[in-house]
Amino acid sequence: MIDHLVVIGAGLIGGSFALALKRKGLVKHVTGVGRGRANLELALKLGVIDSIGASVGEAVRSADVVLAAIPVGAMPALFRELVDTLPAGAIVTDAGSTKQDVIAAARAALGSKIGQFVPGHPIAGAETNGAGAAHAHLFEGKPVILTPLAENRPEDVDRVESLWSACIARVARMSEADHDRVFAAVSHLPHLAAFALMEELAERPDHDIYFSFAGSGFRDFTRIAGSHPEMWRDIALANRVALLGELDTYIDKLETIRGLIEASDGMGLEALFARARQARLNWIKGKVS
Amino acid sequence: MIDHLVVIGAGLIGGSFALALKRKGLVKHVTGVGRGRANLELALKLGVIDSIGASVGEAVRSADVVLAAIPVGAMPALFRELVDTLPAGAIVTDAGSTKQDVIAAARAALGSKIGQFVPGHPIAGAETNGAGAAHAHLFEGKPVILTPLAENRPEDVDRVESLWSACIARVARMSEADHDRVFAAVSHLPHLAAFALMEELAERPDHDIYFSFAGSGFRDFTRIAGSHPEMWRDIALANRVALLGELDTYIDKLETIRGLIEASDGMGLEALFARARQARLNWIKGKVS
Repeated sequence: MIDHLVVIGAGLIGGSFALALKRKGLVKHVTGVGRGRANLELALKLGVIDSIGASVGEAVRSADVVLAAIPVGAMPALFRELVDTLPAGAIVTDAGSTKQDVIAAARAALGSKIGQFVPGHPIAGAETNGAGAAHAHLFEGKPVILTPLAENRPEDVDRVESLWSACIARVARMSEADHDRVFAAVSHLPHLAAFALMEELAERPDHDIYFSFAGSGFRDFTRIAGSHPEMWRDIALANRVALLGELDTYIDKLETIRGLIEASDGMGLEALFARARQARLNWIKGKVS
Repeated sequence: MIDHLVVIGAGLIGGSFALALKRKGLVKHVTGVGRGRANLELALKLGVIDSIGASVGEAVRSADVVLAAIPVGAMPALFRELVDTLPAGAIVTDAGSTKQDVIAAARAALGSKIGQFVPGHPIAGAETNGAGAAHAHLFEGKPVILTPLAENRPEDVDRVESLWSACIARVARMSEADHDRVFAAVSHLPHLAAFALMEELAERPDHDIYFSFAGSGFRDFTRIAGSHPEMWRDIALANRVALLGELDTYIDKLETIRGLIEASDGMGLEALFARARQARLNWIKGKVS
């Protein structure tokens, strides 16, 4: 049971976390803090939060658990705002899509309180956002990665894990470096690739003809290009090193395919496509079973 | 009313076309021809076709309408097989995903019968294939492009259009060059981009860790990597020129994004992502309304 949960950013992720824990009766009072007054008032009206905090520093003063569910670029300032009033024994966790940079920001700001920060990342993206999109079932069956620090007390990590487990999420632990490497490849790069295609076509003077014949394949491929620009700007910059590596590898692969087409190498193309198709069939099968 | 429809390739597309027309009572007899005996027998058993043709040449002898629904790489041989026995007055149309190369193959093989070929392309892809996947509603609300030839009789083009309209498809006409340019961008390139990512990750020794944390964004982005390797090999080669151009443009766009990340240009990244997002919102809105 949490007496006082403080959610920084009462949007899709923060709001859904609060709702899931409320539904299980695991939290007594939720305070929301954030930049957008209208969103906080909506969150209050919808029962996502129980009160609006005047400031981060004020809100965390009596917190047991703090969830930072804001774009990763806003994390450094947040840690600086909460360090002075964060009580001993309170746990801070986050929902940032990158981990090495968030941890670096936490280390820089939290000083001797660094052990109270348990880094996390729920994988439950959606193109919707704001408190109005939050719902208690968002994390059910979804992965949540924790990247614990050497300074964390094991019981604090277990407590954060148990909260996500209460949201029916599948919790895994890994190093922050592994996290950032894996998500650069399976999440950050595909977002860039979808943004790139959408923006490329949109900038053409005759974009109407392209969009009017785009079908379901295009729709699914570009779904993540509907994601939040500020959030993805932050992710791209925060996971810069791993993402540049993935971009280079991906461009190389596209150049390989380009070379096969230019050389009219039908066997090479078919083999590459067949490897891709088989991998996807295996993946989907593994997910379903 | 068609007395005798011959479907070359009684798979998802050919089979669904036959079923849709049967459902409307617009066809008396459907003959299926194809490479896969098992698929043809399944099509017969499911009532997708009414008989199996011994050969293309035999089947088209009494045809009113012939639909070629096979990979575009197989079209040249098909046209050579049907030219001698194709009766005057019969119409041949196709479902090929590229048009300039199919038309070139038709011109090379059909000689004075070229006017009987009305090129077409239904946009109703799916990762499923074979007669078992065919259903009468596949084309409802989906675009079908016709790229008529100067040699076509207007009434023949109208007749093909009316058949697709009977499938509740939205029929449009454009030049074959416009068709290939547009589909290189909105269909062929995204397929290559999805195949590329899937194959790249699959080839890594530690691919398991990547796939185990891939989420819904990855799932949708890579859905079209489940498409048929042979079909897409043919498309990539058939639409070579337009596709190489699109690949170059896309790689340039990825390099632009790479440059923005490397330069830590947050404003530039956010602006590009915002343009992409807005374009997608507009597109989805336009599709829905």
